[in-house]
Amino acid sequence: MKAAPAIVACIAMLCAAANLSRANEPGADPLPSWNDTDTKAAIVEFVELVTDESGDGFVPEPERIAVFDNDGTLWCEQPLYVQLVFALDRVKQLAPEHPEWATTQPFQAVLEDDHDALAAAGVEGLVEIMAATHAGMTTEEFENIVREWVRSARHPTTGRPYTEMVYQPMLELLGYLRDNGFKTYIVSGGGVEFMRVFTEKVYGIPPEQVVGSTIKTEFEMTPDGPVIRRLPELDFIDDKDGKPIAINKFIGRRPIAAFGNSDGDLQMLQWTDAGQGARFCLYVHHTDAEREWAYDRESHIGKLDVGLDEARTNGWTVVDMTNDWNAVFPD
Amino acid sequence: MKAAPAIVACIAMLCAAANLSRANEPGADPLPSWNDTDTKAAIVEFVELVTDESGDGFVPEPERIAVFDNDGTLWCEQPLYVQLVFALDRVKQLAPEHPEWATTQPFQAVLEDDHDALAAAGVEGLVEIMAATHAGMTTEEFENIVREWVRSARHPTTGRPYTEMVYQPMLELLGYLRDNGFKTYIVSGGGVEFMRVFTEKVYGIPPEQVVGSTIKTEFEMTPDGPVIRRLPELDFIDDKDGKPIAINKFIGRRPIAAFGNSDGDLQMLQWTDAGQGARFCLYVHHTDAEREWAYDRESHIGKLDVGLDEARTNGWTVVDMTNDWNAVFPD
Repeated sequence: MKAAPAIVACIAMLCAAANLSRANEPGADPLPSWNDTDTKAAIVEFVELVTDESGDGFVPEPERIAVFDNDGTLWCEQPLYVQLVFALDRVKQLAPEHPEWATTQPFQAVLEDDHDALAAAGVEGLVEIMAATHAGMTTEEFENIVREWVRSARHPTTGRPYTEMVYQPMLELLGYLRDNGFKTYIVSGGGVEFMRVFTEKVYGIPPEQVVGSTIKTEFEMTPDGPVIRRLPELDFIDDKDGKPIAINKFIGRRPIAAFGNSDGDLQMLQWTDAGQGARFCLYVHHTDAEREWAYDRESHIGKLDVGLDEARTNGWTVVDMTNDWNAVFPD
Repeated sequence: MKAAPAIVACIAMLCAAANLSRANEPGADPLPSWNDTDTKAAIVEFVELVTDESGDGFVPEPERIAVFDNDGTLWCEQPLYVQLVFALDRVKQLAPEHPEWATTQPFQAVLEDDHDALAAAGVEGLVEIMAATHAGMTTEEFENIVREWVRSARHPTTGRPYTEMVYQPMLELLGYLRDNGFKTYIVSGGGVEFMRVFTEKVYGIPPEQVVGSTIKTEFEMTPDGPVIRRLPELDFIDDKDGKPIAINKFIGRRPIAAFGNSDGDLQMLQWTDAGQGARFCLYVHHTDAEREWAYDRESHIGKLDVGLDEARTNGWTVVDMTNDWNAVFPD
């Protein structure tokens, strides 16, 4: 993301302020950061369809389940997945307790910011880093570690807290859906206990509506009472096929709307789309190198290739960030 | 359960009818099937404590999570767990497609109602029966099979549908908690996709608030679109230690109230009780051989032994079904 000229930023801020104040009035535009394009029209049309009791597309409120990917759909995933940044920061924090890391890969690579050596360590190295940074402690201890990191960490490009690197138009969309009787869920490849620390405050999504990847845990009786301890063993990866599987397991209803940004979300969108009645599937396409990042078919992070073709074939809605959004991040 | 004399039944029905109509009036007793004992007083005192905004025990609404075991807590589990009856019935239904079962254990034992041979087949036999009856089909097919069975199956002693073998006082308790801003969950050793078929209609608990045991599933693209197929492989057993682990994974908040009836619920009650602030833990003690069943420390089903001692040590509430409930099942 490049810095916008100050004059553009000022105009954007004034517009956003005007929009926000309008959003509180009855009859105000609930999606002020969305330009009046076909994309916005498709969203509004779908919501009006499923909430119109007299129409053919009506969906009773308990069945209005909307699922959202997180990384790249609700908040930024560039230049690195946020949870990976957390893991790398955590290795550096823990290094004094692990002098052996100075000469042991993949930790040495992290400590020396040696991206080539880190890449060479591959998935196996990543699993070692996750085990060292995400396991061993109780769930309460992990929550406190994440909370403190989220409070203090800053995005490397913008210098903003990660919880401000969320997409303003998507925040408005979450609120718009909830105002229309939808229950909004996160269904993300990210760790469920990492996300739950901030999702309620940032997205208005409570812990019980966050579905994600999990590691195994164990229940342990200590002299101070019971704790749940995080184990260095994968339980479930909530990505690709894992997303509809987790939706079935955790939610037990098929969503009527699904929002993603990568091929990892494809099966979630397919599963949603294949249900009976009105359906809405949307891909956020990162097209905006000025205000955010532009990436799709060739990206290592958030690759959107097969999904982009499927979206065209199936008539799913694709957000062109440059044209569809008049603001990207909150003020 | 023995049949109550007709006169007692008539009086009970009249009382229940009177109670039900009173329950709809403002200021009416929300728990008419509960006698005015210390047990009922403890429930009401807890609810008033956590909902009193001016008091020390106040708990904000989003944190009012209440978890309920199902078998033996919300519906009967005698003479056999309901889901086991379903599995045995299903073996008989499927037998014509499996002529080899006539001479293969444990299926032969099921087909010949040979309880000794079935018991001899042990856990391994049970797993085979579960795999044969609960896996292989899509999630939608399984849902339809369960729905049809629940509609047609009858309890062997009472001849009533299983969905009427639910405890009227517990239905009232679920409603009372929800009316006071609680979110009610099932956390059961039963299969999550078995329970979700009836929990919304019977208990007012939607699919997304049902946590249970799971088998593995896979996402499959067929010419007719995507399906989720049930695999003959255990994923998670939601019993004992599994209950707090599942609560942490699925709900992500510690409950403030927990309700169970067996040692399998002990860790769930311990986990709930160990949180900060007001807590309520309750065991349903099956003491009523006249109207239901009497069993605890020596029972193979719903054994309540360590839990009963822990309840006394920790000051948890124990329902004495005989004295605390003026009705057991709905009319």
